[in-house]
Amino acid sequence: MELEDVIKSLRDFRDRRNWLRYHTPKNLALSIIIESTELLELFQWTTNAEEEIRVLDEKRGEIAEEIADILIYLLYFCDVAGIDLEKALREKIARNEMRFPLEGK
Amino acid sequence: MELEDVIKSLRDFRDRRNWLRYHTPKNLALSIIIESTELLELFQWTTNAEEEIRVLDEKRGEIAEEIADILIYLLYFCDVAGIDLEKALREKIARNEMRFPLEGK
Amino acid sequence: MELEDVIKSLRDFRDRRNWLRYHTPKNLALSIIIESTELLELFQWTTNAEEEIRVLDEKRGEIAEEIADILIYLLYFCDVAGIDLEKALREKIARNEMRFPLEGK
Amino acid sequence: MELEDVIKSLRDFRDRRNWLRYHTPKNLALSIIIESTELLELFQWTTNAEEEIRVLDEKRGEIAEEIADILIYLLYFCDVAGIDLEKALREKIARNEMRFPLEGK
Repeated sequence: MELEDVIKSLRDFRDRRNWLRYHTPKNLALSIIIESTELLELFQWTTNAEEEIRVLDEKRGEIAEEIADILIYLLYFCDVAGIDLEKALREKIARNEMRFPLEGK
Repeated sequence: MELEDVIKSLRDFRDRRNWLRYHTPKNLALSIIIESTELLELFQWTTNAEEEIRVLDEKRGEIAEEIADILIYLLYFCDVAGIDLEKALREKIARNEMRFPLEGK
Repeated sequence: MELEDVIKSLRDFRDRRNWLRYHTPKNLALSIIIESTELLELFQWTTNAEEEIRVLDEKRGEIAEEIADILIYLLYFCDVAGIDLEKALREKIARNEMRFPLEGK
Repeated sequence: MELEDVIKSLRDFRDRRNWLRYHTPKNLALSIIIESTELLELFQWTTNAEEEIRVLDEKRGEIAEEIADILIYLLYFCDVAGIDLEKALREKIARNEMRFPLEGK
């Protein structure tokens, strides 16, 4: 799957429904939070690692959907904001290597 | 950039710092929210579209970093949860086509 | 309504259900976010002030419930964390006066 | 401290700075999330109860400030939305008693 093809397909989905007018940067940013919170909600009352693993096992399908929703809104945000996601990712990974140097490296 | 290579690089970054122990699914889910909120914070007090566009123009670098941070934690989440992100995305896109049918289609 | 009475009533509700074990500070902090996000979700796709006012009109009951949920988790958080909410509020209000001085004052 | 006095003081603070124009319901709802996320961030990487308690001990002042910020935005939200917070709280507490009945009661 090429990212470019996914973005084209998402754009097409949005535009055939005439939803671009709702896709302001702010609305997309808060949509990312809304979907992320739905993911976190699955772990709301866990108090140890075993319970988290049980959630992973029992809610696998729901988790995959929330994850996909987050990514979809992230891609829509990048589309309206004119952000190159792959470039942003590469640059951030490089920056993190600088910010958190390994001792004795 | 292949997603598989990015994931390998992120795993390597994490493991050389011995950070896997902090990467519980719950901690990664809430880290996605933390980064998303930093993105939204840039738009906290805007009240119209023009102001949102000004934020996009003036904070381009910061926005790209927040976007990358969200994706990085999303990838780390998928890694510990054993979720295939590309498959989740493809399936969700297909499901959305069913959930929001086009009239007259 | 005295705050002290509300807190007693909330404690009683929680303890009769044996829920204190789930009420870790972290779980309560994220529960505040979960409820706040449910409030924000009502405004997810608005793009101007008129639409926000329409949401206020049409979802009044739901909004009041989300608001109450946020406050309830805030009070539970203060209870387990040993925070005096009224004191915290008074001190923060005083601090804000210092942080944002009025010009010509 | 009477809630009514606090609200008057908050209104006065806001209006002398001419900030009401930024206080749309949506902006206040997302401000509640922003402050809640700052609270949660203090617990971002904890993995057990002891670490949460250590955060409570070491960040007491910061926690109290975040808590106050959440409450302040909640009160501002209620002010612009015309919500009676005490009434909303009382009604929600009563509703929760119905929703979560005690067995054998």
